[in-house]
Amino acid sequence: MKRYRVGVVGLGAVGLEMFKVLEKSGLPISEVVPLVRRNEGSTIEFCGKPLVLKKVGKGAFQDIDIALMAAGSDASEQLAPLAVEEGAVVIDNSSAFRMDPQVPLVVPEVNPQSAQKHKGLIANPNCSTIQMLVAIKPLHDLFKIKRIVVSTYQAVSGTGLQAIDELNSQTRAYVNGQEMPRSVYPHRIAFNALPHIDGFLENGYTGEEMKMFNETRKILDDPQIQVNATTVRVPVLNCHSEAVNIETEKPLPCIDKIREILESAPGVKVLDDVKNNFYPLAIACSGTNDVYVGRIRRDFTIENGLNMWVVADNLRKGAALNAVQIAELLVKNNWLRGA
Amino acid sequence: MKRYRVGVVGLGAVGLEMFKVLEKSGLPISEVVPLVRRNEGSTIEFCGKPLVLKKVGKGAFQDIDIALMAAGSDASEQLAPLAVEEGAVVIDNSSAFRMDPQVPLVVPEVNPQSAQKHKGLIANPNCSTIQMLVAIKPLHDLFKIKRIVVSTYQAVSGTGLQAIDELNSQTRAYVNGQEMPRSVYPHRIAFNALPHIDGFLENGYTGEEMKMFNETRKILDDPQIQVNATTVRVPVLNCHSEAVNIETEKPLPCIDKIREILESAPGVKVLDDVKNNFYPLAIACSGTNDVYVGRIRRDFTIENGLNMWVVADNLRKGAALNAVQIAELLVKNNWLRGA
Repeated sequence: MKRYRVGVVGLGAVGLEMFKVLEKSGLPISEVVPLVRRNEGSTIEFCGKPLVLKKVGKGAFQDIDIALMAAGSDASEQLAPLAVEEGAVVIDNSSAFRMDPQVPLVVPEVNPQSAQKHKGLIANPNCSTIQMLVAIKPLHDLFKIKRIVVSTYQAVSGTGLQAIDELNSQTRAYVNGQEMPRSVYPHRIAFNALPHIDGFLENGYTGEEMKMFNETRKILDDPQIQVNATTVRVPVLNCHSEAVNIETEKPLPCIDKIREILESAPGVKVLDDVKNNFYPLAIACSGTNDVYVGRIRRDFTIENGLNMWVVADNLRKGAALNAVQIAELLVKNNWLRGA
Repeated sequence: MKRYRVGVVGLGAVGLEMFKVLEKSGLPISEVVPLVRRNEGSTIEFCGKPLVLKKVGKGAFQDIDIALMAAGSDASEQLAPLAVEEGAVVIDNSSAFRMDPQVPLVVPEVNPQSAQKHKGLIANPNCSTIQMLVAIKPLHDLFKIKRIVVSTYQAVSGTGLQAIDELNSQTRAYVNGQEMPRSVYPHRIAFNALPHIDGFLENGYTGEEMKMFNETRKILDDPQIQVNATTVRVPVLNCHSEAVNIETEKPLPCIDKIREILESAPGVKVLDDVKNNFYPLAIACSGTNDVYVGRIRRDFTIENGLNMWVVADNLRKGAALNAVQIAELLVKNNWLRGA
């Protein structure tokens, strides 16, 4: 069996998670190569052995089959074309190429077939979008979703390692009665809720909110579906939660049937037994791979409405895991060469 | 000028806040009487002087003109009828009588006229409902709201003093690397988001979610208005935030005009300058009286839709302040005698 050399660009929260996911992946890997802009020569551990960090740049991708990029949009804009030119297939976690019509935007449980048409570059969607789409796709297929109203409760890990540090430092300072330091977010995140993720656009929405709108349409290949999002950062370390309200075109069946549909969907786990206080929780999902759905209940205010509470590990399914799953999809279907 | 004896029943988070609000209230007060079920004879400070706690029970309301109750539903069910019988006008913060058709449910900025019809007892609405209604009322008046989809980000102070302690204890334990204690909530609240406020009902909704539905209809006297709520507890000490999406019957004007309308509404402050990262925040509103509205933007997914981010101090406008404002309304209009 052919084995592949996998490069990982970036050692932030998502990059580090990629190594963890790769350790358990079924991908036939001959070598994992950490590619960095600084600190080359240092090592990180992978499968119990040290891996030497290599300098990223011209020539670095010549022996790489699959490059997983998680170093931010600027790095991707610079390095992804180079990697493709040098023959690697790039799976890019940044937002740089997501809306490029030439670049497939893929959630393997939702639109696997899109991956086949790549020209060397595939984009990994936004974390909040991925978990929402994994949860709603089985319902969209059966009942056609017309409109989504979603409010998010997003963890600081989505911003990166320095944001996890910031929440921790602010929390420590609070406990010690000291002034809470702040450098990552424009306002304190500890004991607060910030209705502000990514920059503000002219229309009053944040970048994150418009990603949920635009990426949903592209991934579902449905230019009609409506997504009204409010994205909010909360003092949670890891795992995003979402209050998702959907309106469907076709009548919805009873809740038990909806649970059945979701339970049999790929990547979804239903945790929904409110009588026993059982519903998805951010603190319980960290380090796991599924998208958890609970609080499933009819929205009685419209004819075909449904509410759900959707939680997933934003570093895993929302980023690193989804990227590795795209790589697995390409290898399994022999789609590495692309269109 | 006639001056009134005001009784306050309960010394929990809301009761204590009532004393703070009464200190600054314009109510003509001759005496404030703290009424308690335990610890009578102890004192609490009011306007710099000690007030002796008196035992609540039969006879305790005979000299009381206005009784502000904040000791929970069980206490209100037992004591409110007694207080009314003994001649006090009761303003009850619990949910015990809110949906009783004989009992007005009042937000002074929204439905002041309802207070006039009381028969000795007026109910103070649910905290999440109050702040949402203060924010949407001016728009409902002009454009008729058909449907609201709301997701809340609620502070632990809404549960009470022991919940504030629980978040603090869990936070301290986290910082000290200890196991986080838990007794108030069914799951850890620190660094988590709990989609569970009040008990679960047969229809899958929580009591809190159905309060937002039922109380909104009663307060607006609009049996058609639809409210789809998801209520979530977040690790915030005080002040509830809400992502509010509305759909109106009539066309909405431009956002600048909507801001103008909200700015001139009683009890509302618009904080909406996203280019300067300026929007309402839980940590900034604690101890203040207004309902803050920001992130005002059109919902482009429906014809007449709008999104807002609404924050208020749930102990003040959501509870103690609203109750005292009802008392002020009764006194000002000479409505103490009721219908």
